[in-house]
Amino acid sequence: MAHPDHEEKSLSGFQDLLRSSTTQASGYLKGVHAADRAEWLLAALPEDAWRVFSDLSTEDKAELLEHAEDELRRELVDRMSAGDLRDLVEEMPSDEAVDLLEEADDRLTEDVLAAIPADIARELRELSAYDSDTAGGLMATEFITVSPTEHIGDAVKAIRKQGEDADEELSVFVVNDQGRPLGFLTDRILLSQPIHTPVQDAMVVPFTIEVHADKEDVGRLVEKYGLNSLGVVDSTGLLIGVISAEDATEVRAEEAEEDLLRLVGASPDSLHARPSVARQVRARLPLMGITILSGLLSAKVLRMFLEGAGGDPGPSDILRYLPLIIGLAGNVGVQSSTVLVRAMALGELEGSRQRAMLRRETSVGLSVGAICGALITLVVMWLEPGRLGLAVGIATLIAVAFSAVLGTSVPVACQKVGIDPAIVAGPFLICLSDIAGSVLFVVVAKALLTL
Amino acid sequence: MAHPDHEEKSLSGFQDLLRSSTTQASGYLKGVHAADRAEWLLAALPEDAWRVFSDLSTEDKAELLEHAEDELRRELVDRMSAGDLRDLVEEMPSDEAVDLLEEADDRLTEDVLAAIPADIARELRELSAYDSDTAGGLMATEFITVSPTEHIGDAVKAIRKQGEDADEELSVFVVNDQGRPLGFLTDRILLSQPIHTPVQDAMVVPFTIEVHADKEDVGRLVEKYGLNSLGVVDSTGLLIGVISAEDATEVRAEEAEEDLLRLVGASPDSLHARPSVARQVRARLPLMGITILSGLLSAKVLRMFLEGAGGDPGPSDILRYLPLIIGLAGNVGVQSSTVLVRAMALGELEGSRQRAMLRRETSVGLSVGAICGALITLVVMWLEPGRLGLAVGIATLIAVAFSAVLGTSVPVACQKVGIDPAIVAGPFLICLSDIAGSVLFVVVAKALLTL
Repeated sequence: MAHPDHEEKSLSGFQDLLRSSTTQASGYLKGVHAADRAEWLLAALPEDAWRVFSDLSTEDKAELLEHAEDELRRELVDRMSAGDLRDLVEEMPSDEAVDLLEEADDRLTEDVLAAIPADIARELRELSAYDSDTAGGLMATEFITVSPTEHIGDAVKAIRKQGEDADEELSVFVVNDQGRPLGFLTDRILLSQPIHTPVQDAMVVPFTIEVHADKEDVGRLVEKYGLNSLGVVDSTGLLIGVISAEDATEVRAEEAEEDLLRLVGASPDSLHARPSVARQVRARLPLMGITILSGLLSAKVLRMFLEGAGGDPGPSDILRYLPLIIGLAGNVGVQSSTVLVRAMALGELEGSRQRAMLRRETSVGLSVGAICGALITLVVMWLEPGRLGLAVGIATLIAVAFSAVLGTSVPVACQKVGIDPAIVAGPFLICLSDIAGSVLFVVVAKALLTL
Repeated sequence: MAHPDHEEKSLSGFQDLLRSSTTQASGYLKGVHAADRAEWLLAALPEDAWRVFSDLSTEDKAELLEHAEDELRRELVDRMSAGDLRDLVEEMPSDEAVDLLEEADDRLTEDVLAAIPADIARELRELSAYDSDTAGGLMATEFITVSPTEHIGDAVKAIRKQGEDADEELSVFVVNDQGRPLGFLTDRILLSQPIHTPVQDAMVVPFTIEVHADKEDVGRLVEKYGLNSLGVVDSTGLLIGVISAEDATEVRAEEAEEDLLRLVGASPDSLHARPSVARQVRARLPLMGITILSGLLSAKVLRMFLEGAGGDPGPSDILRYLPLIIGLAGNVGVQSSTVLVRAMALGELEGSRQRAMLRRETSVGLSVGAICGALITLVVMWLEPGRLGLAVGIATLIAVAFSAVLGTSVPVACQKVGIDPAIVAGPFLICLSDIAGSVLFVVVAKALLTL
């Protein structure tokens, strides 16, 4: 894996310098790709990240922000003055500028929009009005158009002219007089065709999507047809924006992650290292609610059938609560381990961030366990006679807490010994959590009942 | 979503024609993108797909195969003569040609390699020797090189010259006399720079990866740095191949799918509609083995603790087997539902394929249930006195079978009523399977024990 300019530079080298001097750390970033810079700053403390970021040129800042995770972007924007933000907004393509302004507070955004040219401000306002889950929320408004009777040479000239103003590579669409897309010109076509060829003889079919279409459809189209860029049209069919393949692919990857986390009832935010524990707990409670309800229902129904069978329920009566314990402990463990396994796969468990994430995941798991335990205690105390409620509640709390610890430690242990956590963590964890949860529950409940 | 040439054409239109006439169906494909053609043929019966495919030109066939899922490719290759295969191999870029030959049986492959020019045959043999999970397994050997002192105009000329022979867009690398990559030239650079500029003044840093590197790293590099193409170097650093961004992105998407399926202990093959039920069952049994072992262990440990508490175990003694039932039923249900939910998300549950896939998933779940039930019956009959073994085994079988049906019907039901199966199917299914499994188990076991 070679990227000659910074082959010998690394996150740990950067972190070592950062401990002694911000200036040296900034200097170390010279020649490092913006994507790596963004990754390294994400692994640093927010204050340090800001100091290093401030030392960069406006162009480098803009490029770094385009590669930054939402979290880093938010932290940096929080520390920006209106002047900082204006310089960046003027430097960035429209889609990135809108994303940046959305992180800033409303007053700051208004100051910035008032300070930049009125037509750009209007464009940015229009863009920010689109739902971020639609094609409109992803598109940039910068692109090049030529008319069908112009020649290849004209399109090349347009690229050279606009290339001087804009850093990024603008797509070239062929449009009719009204602005309706008729064709698309890839760079390879422009390179291969003689300059006097009319573009209508060289263009390919343009792929477009309606501005209000779901972003999932954007990703699907780009992936399926292997597109370089996708045109965005308004409801009357006029070309109003372009989505790059890179942005579309990013969306696709994010969607896949979100689906996976939803499958285990964890919030898609979980992958980032700094949202609050409270927010994570809130996101996971709905699934726990369903699990508790169905667990209590199982206990009730099982009692009916066992009573129907006649005889004294006996000491194993508390086993009716096993479905509840197993379901709850399994969910807590699987949520934590899935979040960690995905973060590992994405390389997001690096540096100082790793410990923070483990600590946070464990806190989230323990909090969910405590809340569920308390809730179950109350409900079972009300449903059952005697001390059973207290015993079941406390035993649940302990079993779930143990599972939360398992959920974070099993993936880490797998990684330490070099086993792929994605393959082992899921099934292995569930088995371990089932046995340990059941046994812990029975031991604790028995102990409490015979006190 | 517009792709003007076949805006009004659709899978169902194609299927209607296919029922009456292959020729008409083939004609309908005119102007349809190769990615759609591949999708539609995948939804058709293999014999029909082959007849329509045969009507296409060699160029169209090659393009369709590049977009085809492995399954369709395999079905088509199975029906090809050595002559068909040779024409296609000569038409395709090297990476695609190798993939195609790998689907063919060894004798056919040898016939084809003997019939094509010796240097191409040698190249294909070399390529096919690389592990398909490495960069070497993904790369094509076609690319353009220029030396650092050549000019922009020379690179453009090289593109025009090679563009006439090859259909696909070849990447342009700047290499030294030995063939070591020094730089990369994007099409946009070639378009923007004056033709007399030496390429070494215009080139950007080339990204390369070692030929034996894992394909996961390929995907990660391309995504992280937003690359158009990635150079592949041998152990001495010489440029020997290129991987396109499109291929890398595809790999990334496949990896994400595979991770997800592994997380639930199902085989990554499950997404395709025609691998055998037996193969699927085999792939899922290891996880079931772990689940059974841990469930039996739970039952044993729980008995120890309950006996320790004194007193007759009572009628609820069979509840000790709940962790076993719940774990097993949950796994079976989640495996089936995950496979279906992902297939739905990928749009792979279309046409005649939907029913086949549902039937297959249900068979797989039922088979897994039957095998596990039989195994458990034997083990529990040996572990426990009396009729308990038979009762537990049969009750398990029924509970697991029910969960297998749930696992296929819940996602389908979600889709029918318009709820996103990715969000609802997981948690909802597990709860339903926990309750239903527990209750079914107790009812059946009690009934058998009191017979």
